[in-house]
Amino acid sequence: MTTESPAAAHPLDYVFHPRSVAIVGVSSKDMDAFGGIGFLRAIRAAGFPGPIYPVNPKATEVEGLRCYPSLPAIEGPVDYVISSVPARAVASLMDDAIAKGVKVIHFFTAGFSETGDEDLAGLEQEVLRRATEAGIRLIGPNCMGLYVPRTGLAFMYGFPVTPGHVALISQSGANAGEFVNFSSIHGVRFSKVVSFGNALDLNAADFFDYCADDPDTHVICAYLEGVKGGPRFVEAFKKAAARKPVIVLKGGRTEAGTRAASSHTGSLAGEIQIFDALCRQAGAIRVESLGALCDMASAFQFLAKGPGNRVCILGGGGGTSVLAADDAAAAGLEVPWLPESTQQAMRDFTPVAGTSVRNPVDVMAAWDMKQLKRTVEIAASAENIDFVLYHTGFGWGPRLTDAGERAKETIAQLAQVRDEVGKPIVIAMRPPISAEAMGLTLDFQSECAKAGFATFPSIERACAAMALMAKWQAARDARV
Amino acid sequence: MTTESPAAAHPLDYVFHPRSVAIVGVSSKDMDAFGGIGFLRAIRAAGFPGPIYPVNPKATEVEGLRCYPSLPAIEGPVDYVISSVPARAVASLMDDAIAKGVKVIHFFTAGFSETGDEDLAGLEQEVLRRATEAGIRLIGPNCMGLYVPRTGLAFMYGFPVTPGHVALISQSGANAGEFVNFSSIHGVRFSKVVSFGNALDLNAADFFDYCADDPDTHVICAYLEGVKGGPRFVEAFKKAAARKPVIVLKGGRTEAGTRAASSHTGSLAGEIQIFDALCRQAGAIRVESLGALCDMASAFQFLAKGPGNRVCILGGGGGTSVLAADDAAAAGLEVPWLPESTQQAMRDFTPVAGTSVRNPVDVMAAWDMKQLKRTVEIAASAENIDFVLYHTGFGWGPRLTDAGERAKETIAQLAQVRDEVGKPIVIAMRPPISAEAMGLTLDFQSECAKAGFATFPSIERACAAMALMAKWQAARDARV
Repeated sequence: MTTESPAAAHPLDYVFHPRSVAIVGVSSKDMDAFGGIGFLRAIRAAGFPGPIYPVNPKATEVEGLRCYPSLPAIEGPVDYVISSVPARAVASLMDDAIAKGVKVIHFFTAGFSETGDEDLAGLEQEVLRRATEAGIRLIGPNCMGLYVPRTGLAFMYGFPVTPGHVALISQSGANAGEFVNFSSIHGVRFSKVVSFGNALDLNAADFFDYCADDPDTHVICAYLEGVKGGPRFVEAFKKAAARKPVIVLKGGRTEAGTRAASSHTGSLAGEIQIFDALCRQAGAIRVESLGALCDMASAFQFLAKGPGNRVCILGGGGGTSVLAADDAAAAGLEVPWLPESTQQAMRDFTPVAGTSVRNPVDVMAAWDMKQLKRTVEIAASAENIDFVLYHTGFGWGPRLTDAGERAKETIAQLAQVRDEVGKPIVIAMRPPISAEAMGLTLDFQSECAKAGFATFPSIERACAAMALMAKWQAARDARV
Repeated sequence: MTTESPAAAHPLDYVFHPRSVAIVGVSSKDMDAFGGIGFLRAIRAAGFPGPIYPVNPKATEVEGLRCYPSLPAIEGPVDYVISSVPARAVASLMDDAIAKGVKVIHFFTAGFSETGDEDLAGLEQEVLRRATEAGIRLIGPNCMGLYVPRTGLAFMYGFPVTPGHVALISQSGANAGEFVNFSSIHGVRFSKVVSFGNALDLNAADFFDYCADDPDTHVICAYLEGVKGGPRFVEAFKKAAARKPVIVLKGGRTEAGTRAASSHTGSLAGEIQIFDALCRQAGAIRVESLGALCDMASAFQFLAKGPGNRVCILGGGGGTSVLAADDAAAAGLEVPWLPESTQQAMRDFTPVAGTSVRNPVDVMAAWDMKQLKRTVEIAASAENIDFVLYHTGFGWGPRLTDAGERAKETIAQLAQVRDEVGKPIVIAMRPPISAEAMGLTLDFQSECAKAGFATFPSIERACAAMALMAKWQAARDARV
């Protein structure tokens, strides 16, 4: 991963580092997770260090904070405004924001061009004209805005407080929220997550350019529907992909999806073939599901470099092993039989019945802690293997009782092998089928992340992610 | 689904209805979930009504049951034997079983032809020769055997006790166990689940023929690696698929998977193209993952008939909706825009901002119970819609508190719409990200099943399953 030492801050750096935030249109009567009150709670939970100003002429206090009747009524300077007012109140909000000298407005407010209504699209353009004149930058409208853990900004309650190095540039707030939720349980941590909706002012080109320069960002993920400003976008996208892994989930890869995107963010999604050509040219990876986007974030966060594509699959279950081999091969990985000498070394302490030492390795070592380290060590050391995929799970019979202890021991042994043999090990989970098994799975994933292991929600998804990463690395190495 | 009234019992019917079970090689020192003790616990938990005889010369009591030194030492007749002894003890077990007049032996015992060792393959053939001579039928070796809830047989602890109408014919015990675990949390219930491993005697042909005739079986799922006895298998497979939905997961669809299958059950998996041709000819469905097999079981258990392929997708989230439309279209479903009149009927009570009433329908009704029934009713009634896919989930912000109540109310409203409008509604879950959300999701799925709704673990998987079912139904209708 590249870590740049920037000569000067990026011109958009202040957007991500406001010193104060006002939330306009906040009401205690809002639905709990959405609207102004949701932003207020999220930002407070994220530990924003500067002043937070709720604004609502009908309240004097919101959640213990003094509530102001308007932006100009606030004594101190206001860098960043979150607008949760309805579209009809936006003109007056613009008056106040200009008067107050606000630098950035995030419009959670929706109901503009994405509705297909001409008047509302006109209102949107008028907002842009006035903002540009006043030097105010806009995020949105129709979006969730920023999650920047290092700055204490967040748009949903419960996002991780610890910062990391994965960025997400997203046209959808729901998908951005799910991306954070789904990947954070695998230990992924974030530099900047941007939900930018209709992209009236700041758009994908700006955010790619920023993330390309941002020293805190090592991996750039994106959810895009349509992209505006053709050549500028292409330039920024290529710049980013030349410096860092870029992984894109493109909404509207089918005609039905394209129609849906037009209702969602007013995007005119182009032909997926054109976007694919751009990805190939730039060296970016396109994935087809939110899950796959999360998996790539895991892979690139935890592995310093993509390994080759020859995998040793190791874990319990004969039929599981057959399907794992199919999944790996279908994804583009090789699953070579281990060399005779490797097989023999395992046979020396592995009973013949109900096992296989060829690859996939299906041995009781997956269940018997005493043999785990030895087995994985022998497998990882084989000369025709680039990395090990270990699969495990919780919730089979009464085994749950000592699951916590076994999990810690498993991770410790795998970490030893990884460090001694010097080859990557990634971990695929068998899906849990009870709340208790889910809890154990989450704890295990969290411990794996602490030990530096990428985990994936299934063998199939682990194979798909590792195959894409291996392919990306091979292409990258061929260029250099 | 067909319900046959059989003129006479199938010749293999007694295999699934033993009056007594002996477990040979049971030991209290076994690992808790595997080996003899695992079978003993599973069968007792399944409520087997006849006598259960643990057999082990070194014990007098196992788990409170009298333990016998050998099969002949048991006073009463023994219909069914589970062999958990090592391969080297099998010759002597055969002596005893023949002396005792046993009818069926399930060999959990592994270490035969699947090892690739000629001597062990020879031992396997000798077992078959002696069993055939004595009129004993064999299940396995190298397998988990039978789960027949109606008879009180099971091979893993915690399987559902309530019987149902889905059969599984599986060459893998691990995959059979996961199939039951993964699909039972969606309310799928089983008639016969067979894990038959190396298929030394009873094989896939026998089980397909049996399930085709079995009045308790309405849907036949299968996990196959290689198939033995060519023409007999083809005949039984076609007979089954002509009468009931048949869905097959074929292990060894790649070269790597085929190699793994040869280590697992000694199967010579053929070219996947040949198997595909057979499926097309027979009218069976081939899927490529265990998850997809479970999803098809859900779809066929809960829906009386495959609907057409025009779906209305309904739930919260703009980006979620775009990806859902992509998933649906990629799977082969149509996502037509709703007629103008339908859109207008929704617009009458749906705010314009942040919503879409076209299809996918992304409205706050997904969150606001008062508008849910009305919205779904209008959507389902549209003339260009065959079924509704409703998506929901648990674990977004503080909304968990009243989740249970909301879940019940949601199901009640959806059931009313389904019954009044007369179109199917299926439910896709957003994946849970905490143990608490997992618990709520499991409870919700269980309530959905009680109300007759198929649930799926993701929108993507719901779309894939429904598209396959629609295609199967269209082909079936075209034949009749």
